[in-house]
Amino acid sequence: MTGTATSLAQPLSPDELAGIDAYWRACNYLAAGMIYLRANPLLREPLAIEHIKQRLLGHWGASPGLAFTYVHANRLIRQHDLNAIFIAGPGHGAPGVLAPVYLEGSFSEVYPDISEDEEGLTRLFRHFSFPGGFGSHCTPELPGSIHEGGELGYSLSHAFGAAFDNPDLVVVATVGDGEAETGPLATAWHSNKFLHPIRDGAVLPVLQLNGYKINNPALLARIPRDELEQLMFGYGWTPFFVEGDDPAIMHQQMAAAMDECLSLIREYQQSARSSGIASRPRWPMIVLRSPKGWTGPAEVNGHRVEGSWRAHQVPLGDVQGNPESFAQLEAWLRSYRPQELFDDRGRLRDDLRQLAPQGKRRMGSNPHANGGLLKRDLRLPDFRSYAVPVAEPGHGRAMNTRPLGAMLRDTMARNMGNFRVFGPDETTSNKLDAIYEVSGKLWLAERRPEDDDGGELDPDGRVLEMLSEHTLEGWLEGYVLTGRHGFFATYEAFAHVIDSMYNQHAKWLDICESLPWRAPIASINLLITSTVWRQDHNGFTHQDPGFIDIVVNKSPAVTRVYLPPDANCLLSTADHCLRSHNDINVIVCDKQNHLQYLDMESAIRHCTKGIGIWDWASTDQGREPDLVMAGCGDIATQEALAATALLLEQFPDLRVRFVNVVDLFRIAPAEEHPHGLSDRDFDSLFTMDRPVIFNFHGYPWLIHRLAYRRHNHRNLHVRGYKEKGSINTPMELAIENNVDRFSLAIDAIDRVPRLQASGAHAKEALRNRQIDCRQYAHVHGVDMPEVSGWNWPGLRKS
Amino acid sequence: MTGTATSLAQPLSPDELAGIDAYWRACNYLAAGMIYLRANPLLREPLAIEHIKQRLLGHWGASPGLAFTYVHANRLIRQHDLNAIFIAGPGHGAPGVLAPVYLEGSFSEVYPDISEDEEGLTRLFRHFSFPGGFGSHCTPELPGSIHEGGELGYSLSHAFGAAFDNPDLVVVATVGDGEAETGPLATAWHSNKFLHPIRDGAVLPVLQLNGYKINNPALLARIPRDELEQLMFGYGWTPFFVEGDDPAIMHQQMAAAMDECLSLIREYQQSARSSGIASRPRWPMIVLRSPKGWTGPAEVNGHRVEGSWRAHQVPLGDVQGNPESFAQLEAWLRSYRPQELFDDRGRLRDDLRQLAPQGKRRMGSNPHANGGLLKRDLRLPDFRSYAVPVAEPGHGRAMNTRPLGAMLRDTMARNMGNFRVFGPDETTSNKLDAIYEVSGKLWLAERRPEDDDGGELDPDGRVLEMLSEHTLEGWLEGYVLTGRHGFFATYEAFAHVIDSMYNQHAKWLDICESLPWRAPIASINLLITSTVWRQDHNGFTHQDPGFIDIVVNKSPAVTRVYLPPDANCLLSTADHCLRSHNDINVIVCDKQNHLQYLDMESAIRHCTKGIGIWDWASTDQGREPDLVMAGCGDIATQEALAATALLLEQFPDLRVRFVNVVDLFRIAPAEEHPHGLSDRDFDSLFTMDRPVIFNFHGYPWLIHRLAYRRHNHRNLHVRGYKEKGSINTPMELAIENNVDRFSLAIDAIDRVPRLQASGAHAKEALRNRQIDCRQYAHVHGVDMPEVSGWNWPGLRKS
Repeated sequence: MTGTATSLAQPLSPDELAGIDAYWRACNYLAAGMIYLRANPLLREPLAIEHIKQRLLGHWGASPGLAFTYVHANRLIRQHDLNAIFIAGPGHGAPGVLAPVYLEGSFSEVYPDISEDEEGLTRLFRHFSFPGGFGSHCTPELPGSIHEGGELGYSLSHAFGAAFDNPDLVVVATVGDGEAETGPLATAWHSNKFLHPIRDGAVLPVLQLNGYKINNPALLARIPRDELEQLMFGYGWTPFFVEGDDPAIMHQQMAAAMDECLSLIREYQQSARSSGIASRPRWPMIVLRSPKGWTGPAEVNGHRVEGSWRAHQVPLGDVQGNPESFAQLEAWLRSYRPQELFDDRGRLRDDLRQLAPQGKRRMGSNPHANGGLLKRDLRLPDFRSYAVPVAEPGHGRAMNTRPLGAMLRDTMARNMGNFRVFGPDETTSNKLDAIYEVSGKLWLAERRPEDDDGGELDPDGRVLEMLSEHTLEGWLEGYVLTGRHGFFATYEAFAHVIDSMYNQHAKWLDICESLPWRAPIASINLLITSTVWRQDHNGFTHQDPGFIDIVVNKSPAVTRVYLPPDANCLLSTADHCLRSHNDINVIVCDKQNHLQYLDMESAIRHCTKGIGIWDWASTDQGREPDLVMAGCGDIATQEALAATALLLEQFPDLRVRFVNVVDLFRIAPAEEHPHGLSDRDFDSLFTMDRPVIFNFHGYPWLIHRLAYRRHNHRNLHVRGYKEKGSINTPMELAIENNVDRFSLAIDAIDRVPRLQASGAHAKEALRNRQIDCRQYAHVHGVDMPEVSGWNWPGLRKS
Repeated sequence: MTGTATSLAQPLSPDELAGIDAYWRACNYLAAGMIYLRANPLLREPLAIEHIKQRLLGHWGASPGLAFTYVHANRLIRQHDLNAIFIAGPGHGAPGVLAPVYLEGSFSEVYPDISEDEEGLTRLFRHFSFPGGFGSHCTPELPGSIHEGGELGYSLSHAFGAAFDNPDLVVVATVGDGEAETGPLATAWHSNKFLHPIRDGAVLPVLQLNGYKINNPALLARIPRDELEQLMFGYGWTPFFVEGDDPAIMHQQMAAAMDECLSLIREYQQSARSSGIASRPRWPMIVLRSPKGWTGPAEVNGHRVEGSWRAHQVPLGDVQGNPESFAQLEAWLRSYRPQELFDDRGRLRDDLRQLAPQGKRRMGSNPHANGGLLKRDLRLPDFRSYAVPVAEPGHGRAMNTRPLGAMLRDTMARNMGNFRVFGPDETTSNKLDAIYEVSGKLWLAERRPEDDDGGELDPDGRVLEMLSEHTLEGWLEGYVLTGRHGFFATYEAFAHVIDSMYNQHAKWLDICESLPWRAPIASINLLITSTVWRQDHNGFTHQDPGFIDIVVNKSPAVTRVYLPPDANCLLSTADHCLRSHNDINVIVCDKQNHLQYLDMESAIRHCTKGIGIWDWASTDQGREPDLVMAGCGDIATQEALAATALLLEQFPDLRVRFVNVVDLFRIAPAEEHPHGLSDRDFDSLFTMDRPVIFNFHGYPWLIHRLAYRRHNHRNLHVRGYKEKGSINTPMELAIENNVDRFSLAIDAIDRVPRLQASGAHAKEALRNRQIDCRQYAHVHGVDMPEVSGWNWPGLRKS
């Protein structure tokens, strides 16, 4: 059970040892060179000040450990013809990954300018951490990277996402010991409970215990070793320790540990695959305890650097001004003996080149790390076949997400191994449980008899549920980045848990759009449900429609937000999203029973436009209206329609134009977002000068932020959520925030000139009905039946 | 080392056992009653349909385990006169906490209407989960709560925050097994590395292993027991297991476990306190493995409910329509034998009342859970004494955050035990390291010799650094909620990690504002630094100024955002924030070397107004200007000033009014935010019709969202970050996003009518200088020296 001490194993012959160490020295040399040199890249001349960069930037500390892990993974790949990719948790140690990716030739294939010779090497050094060049993290520009590591915490969840449904793949996932302190990483260790030994690949975590963060020791490096061992056991892993600083000993230990880990992985996989029985073994992992800034300057100006937080970035900072430091730098660089490592042209010596895998087996060239290359389009069922029948708008009810559940079920059935559904313990609560008819929730842990009674647990399920939005989003991203497709449904308020992950993925995709060699990947599809307007149970803490405020901040090239008003629009939207690529699609739609408006053909037409006039709810008949009433979002649309009906009850000759918005970015100017309407189209919907009452699902100012440049913005009156809530009934909550039918109708009367004079009586009546509604809710704890739905006298049929 | 099995211990006498069980039955009865009953609260009549609520809402599943823990904590408090508070991680089990808080009398003291008699009981039941009443989480309305548990994940970090600097306090922190899957909770177990056994209190975690979430088993309930034990050991705890479902046995086990835990806590504390040597013991914790919905219906309609996910909310849902369920409900409620528990008036039997602690020892009445009662104002040094001398605006440079570090140092020195500083491994990087002169970073783990060389580790330090923004924010909230003060500095982009925590705390504070019995607590003070505009090292992933977009969505009663342009303004702002209460103060200010503008007296005047004209940078001399140039944020202000200087170079008679904004909410209308300017004041600054170039630190649309109702909004041209970035030099990044001096000057020429004709040549010259800057950066990797600073010819002295 315990990971055995491997200090006695000597798997490397002296030649192999010399070779792997030379390769690693080449990596370390390049990593240091990237930080310091702009010329004389092979030190063929004595080092001079003019060879040194003006500004020294880069992260040295994590680099040697990353390169060490990379070269040992290379050995394993070669020996076993392994299909492996590399994830750099401490992505700010990019020099330690750039170096071996360059040395194996992957880099020059993508960037022919950075050739494998002295000139290319000079360019590599110069472009590193230099404006217009390569960043100091494992950015999208780095071949072989699916994980930038700019923000910390997601290396393991990304790694597992990559391993799912890739039975031959081994994901070597380095985890920084700083990163290991983050919440997302701390719970991602539990991902091993969701790894299927038959149909999934393996994740081999290598905890980079170099001991220090920016200025502090790392927690896990300073707890007793037995505690760390127990922690890893407790997480369900078998840890192997590789500890020390003498490269000769460390290479033997690491090679032995890697051999043992791979052999355990293969043993577990084969045992499950031959028996057909999936269970959870205690998968192996490696704790690599080596000095931060390993092989770098031991001491600088009397301060310890190697094996200290001082090695985090640039270990020798004053080389331009301090001759002693300058000499120390040259000695350090020469300690790697570059003259022994590179040939005359400046290319890695041929015998060393042989130590890297070839072709697509190189981790910098493995197509799994450029997932678009492997992406197969989803085989989608006809979404029309799940349509909710709508004979007349606004008369029937349905749970908006239920038909989507059936569509996802059939999507799952047609794309086993290429599609996954993710949810934080809420798939049933979100009414998507039809999926379980074809694939239950993956569960490899202990089973109990009662699980068979509706538990939907399934050792072969492909629905992943864990109460960690971080882990789910990380899995989904890893899955999609390696060329597959996914769907994640989550509670609206707690989508904020992954705000920062959304930001990082949006930035990743935005950069990818400018990299022609990165093939497009499937979009991230996020269904935001259990929305703000139905929280009579959970109350104020569960009311937060602000995730889309975060979404709209990112690049228009990759951001999409949809608010389908009913089930058929949701189906049409979901179909579109599942076919899209390189986007982040956020769909906001509540799970409860709601009025249905559009039959499927109307829904398709409407969603294709993304915004449109609903003739059956309008009375302007093509003329200039007195008022534009707009709804965006399911509840917002319902109340806007009810308000329209109330107005027409009182003022039958009022000319109302009813507009519904599905695609939020239609509101934005065409110059700001590819989905934005031209001013002309916008004006033709919203007029140049008529009052517009816009009822919005989210915070009202988001609409102003999108629409402030529109001609008729001064007449745009937006209602939305404004943080007035408790355990209210739905109507009460709407009233508190003025998105209810009564408030909207009063708003309209106040703004339509020809109603202002005669409207006092109507407003009084509306206010009284509003008060009645409130009182009814406070007495009965539920809404008055007559306002829970609406029949629409005065509104025509479509 | 191991938590011993406690199954043989029988600490409770038969009488004690009977008493504690009766008390617990009373709790469970009330919890069920809250969910079901609106009348006949003591079942003195046969149960009838009209006694049942129309809508059944509430979370039963977690309630019995919470109440069980609460009553056993009560026993401990009484026995040892313990000073303890209770944190309900699974806050949605509120009935299980409301019940004992009511039974001990704390509830009725705050809400005299909910009296301790049959009438009060009826009100309690009716008001639970009913509009206008008490929520189904441990909301601020619940006396004794400092943790709502609406969002999951923060119970342990809140608990530790409460325990810091409260040496006598024991925080009983229940952790849900669903919650335990979240990232923030998974890493918060490591908080024990930061608990000082001499000056801090104790946290006693009780993991509520009831086995199920909403629809799924909990992960930790389905891993082998040895794995769970090792996990807790690995986290550094000594776990005690209390497992079973027979109340008689479980009471004995729980009492024994509680006794042992308290005795270990006291032993560790006394040993440290008598020796004066602080180290980290393996603190005890309890794993309470009991059935979900314990004592509730075992089976309903053929489905297992007790001990299953089906017990999560309302175990019997169809009691109104199904006579069998109705009978089952009555039998279940009567199984608690309410007639034995309550006296004639409907009050808990006197002998049972004795089992609760008295007065402030009751966990519902402990002042630590209403921290404002204990809050002592900070003794602040005179912030003026840290002033950066500014002889002439814009000529000197300083790191904006350095003087703040000195001020925080002296604040710390004067308020030891009442003030803490938090940071994710970045206090030095953020230039606040002066703090270490009086208090290092708390470090109780292993020490190494090199730590003494600038490591600033200190077993008695009060600066808390861990690479988990979640844990830090949770600690800070817990610390402040229990009446102390704190300051948290973090990287701007990764403030998004705690978006959701911010949302939850803002909602908590907003509710507290309406609860007169909750005394005001200190504000949360967040310094957002390492901002978007200085990321030449870390690049695109570290560029995200959107945290303030999240902030402004929450209630104006509690949200404050400040963007001081220089060091003296930062000092003045920080002083204000440290004196404020019940707010969340977000201060955005970069840590790098920046130009300084205002001497201290000017800074105080300026920050007091929050917005103002800088005469020395203006040439309108009280007349109507040609142009208003505005800056908000340090870099934004610098570039706006430089643009003004460039314009005046070309057009010496141009009338420019220069406005600087420190308090972001000044831009909002007075009706929308208490800091909002009246329209009249706004107009007097920004005019009714002149072009305004507004250079903003963050995403530009945030200004539009705040200002869209202002008269001159149509002439408001905002520049800000728009997701154009890489590892650019500062000037290059500014140019990419058009916030640079050249772009702003061109913007101005385009908008000032009298410049449009003559401006073509000037624009050409500006564009050329912009190109030169870009090229210089691409060649040298640094900005041209002449644009890194600015001397301001043409700008007058102040």
